[in-house]
Amino acid sequence: MSVDTHRTNTGRPLTARGRETRTRIVTAAAELMLDTGVAGTTMEDVRARAGVSSSQIYHYFADKDALVHAVIEHQDETIVGAHESMFAEIDSIDALRRWCAWIVDYQRLGGCSGGCPLGSLGVQVAEVDVDARAGVARALGRWERAIRRGYESMRARGVFDDRADTSALAMSTLAALQGGLLMAQIQRSTTALEASLDAVVRHAELLAAQSVV
Amino acid sequence: MSVDTHRTNTGRPLTARGRETRTRIVTAAAELMLDTGVAGTTMEDVRARAGVSSSQIYHYFADKDALVHAVIEHQDETIVGAHESMFAEIDSIDALRRWCAWIVDYQRLGGCSGGCPLGSLGVQVAEVDVDARAGVARALGRWERAIRRGYESMRARGVFDDRADTSALAMSTLAALQGGLLMAQIQRSTTALEASLDAVVRHAELLAAQSVV
Repeated sequence: MSVDTHRTNTGRPLTARGRETRTRIVTAAAELMLDTGVAGTTMEDVRARAGVSSSQIYHYFADKDALVHAVIEHQDETIVGAHESMFAEIDSIDALRRWCAWIVDYQRLGGCSGGCPLGSLGVQVAEVDVDARAGVARALGRWERAIRRGYESMRARGVFDDRADTSALAMSTLAALQGGLLMAQIQRSTTALEASLDAVVRHAELLAAQSVV
Repeated sequence: MSVDTHRTNTGRPLTARGRETRTRIVTAAAELMLDTGVAGTTMEDVRARAGVSSSQIYHYFADKDALVHAVIEHQDETIVGAHESMFAEIDSIDALRRWCAWIVDYQRLGGCSGGCPLGSLGVQVAEVDVDARAGVARALGRWERAIRRGYESMRARGVFDDRADTSALAMSTLAALQGGLLMAQIQRSTTALEASLDAVVRHAELLAAQSVV
């Protein structure tokens, strides 16, 4: 999957105004897919929500698959981009704990609906669109690397010793987050998400205590 | 959601043969929903896969929603039922480690496709069918309790001391499993699932070591 955000579906370059219209369509599609799922979202729903004409939406996106790919790229930029910025600042267990608390608060504010916009999209496309699945897989890989940099900062600052496997820690942290968000979405409660993220912090604390010994 | 597996859609009791036909339809639907998603599965697909007539399928299920609810109940019985049996035997960290290895092997054998049949169904229905979502939430609750009994056995055998919160441990274990399965499905690799389940075992080991001190 490779979506050129600066071209129409036939490869023509976009004007500034064209880019703005395209962004409005992708944002509307992302919101609808979060609210009612990928399958529950039609091109007509997106067209109406974005306030564009039929010819406009098809000018940018040949079909719904193209729109799904653009939404995945949008969520990659938005969500993974935000976590990249956050983890660039995480270099202590306290900072990790604040990140976990922020995630829980954010879910609570949203009534635990929607789950992770990327993970949820991934589950919905995984068995039906190999390119979309690969796009979400790449975004998850980027997310893992962002988290790993946080753990590497902690190791560099002596929070952990060299036995700490920062790559495995990053993967298990992202899995704990994804599983916690999935359970929050289904159970409409942050209880399991809190337990899952607490275990991440507790695990880091135990590793840190072990490093001090 | 309450599905009576011994009645037709109009509430008439089923004969032994009727129950067999109903089971065949639900199994076919469960397989198709795992392969192509809930939205990608039509009543006609299920009818053809189960080898029944149109009037037969509608005799048991008024519509696709009814079929989705029956599939959730089927996965609850099958998957959560299996994990209840497994966790009744898990009373040591070695046994927990064997369960994790079994999960990873099972995913690898299936090429990491499908994810968790329950978690994946939950994500697909969460925003569009409140009864189906509640059904998956109940199944996840039952799954949590099964895992908790394993941790309680470990605590009773002195693996952990009384500081171990078996309820939180069970929730974080199920979240680690769900997140690991989601990442396996999307990345078509067991690497993150292994890291996620290793963290569960490692966390239990660190708690056990702390209990010995």
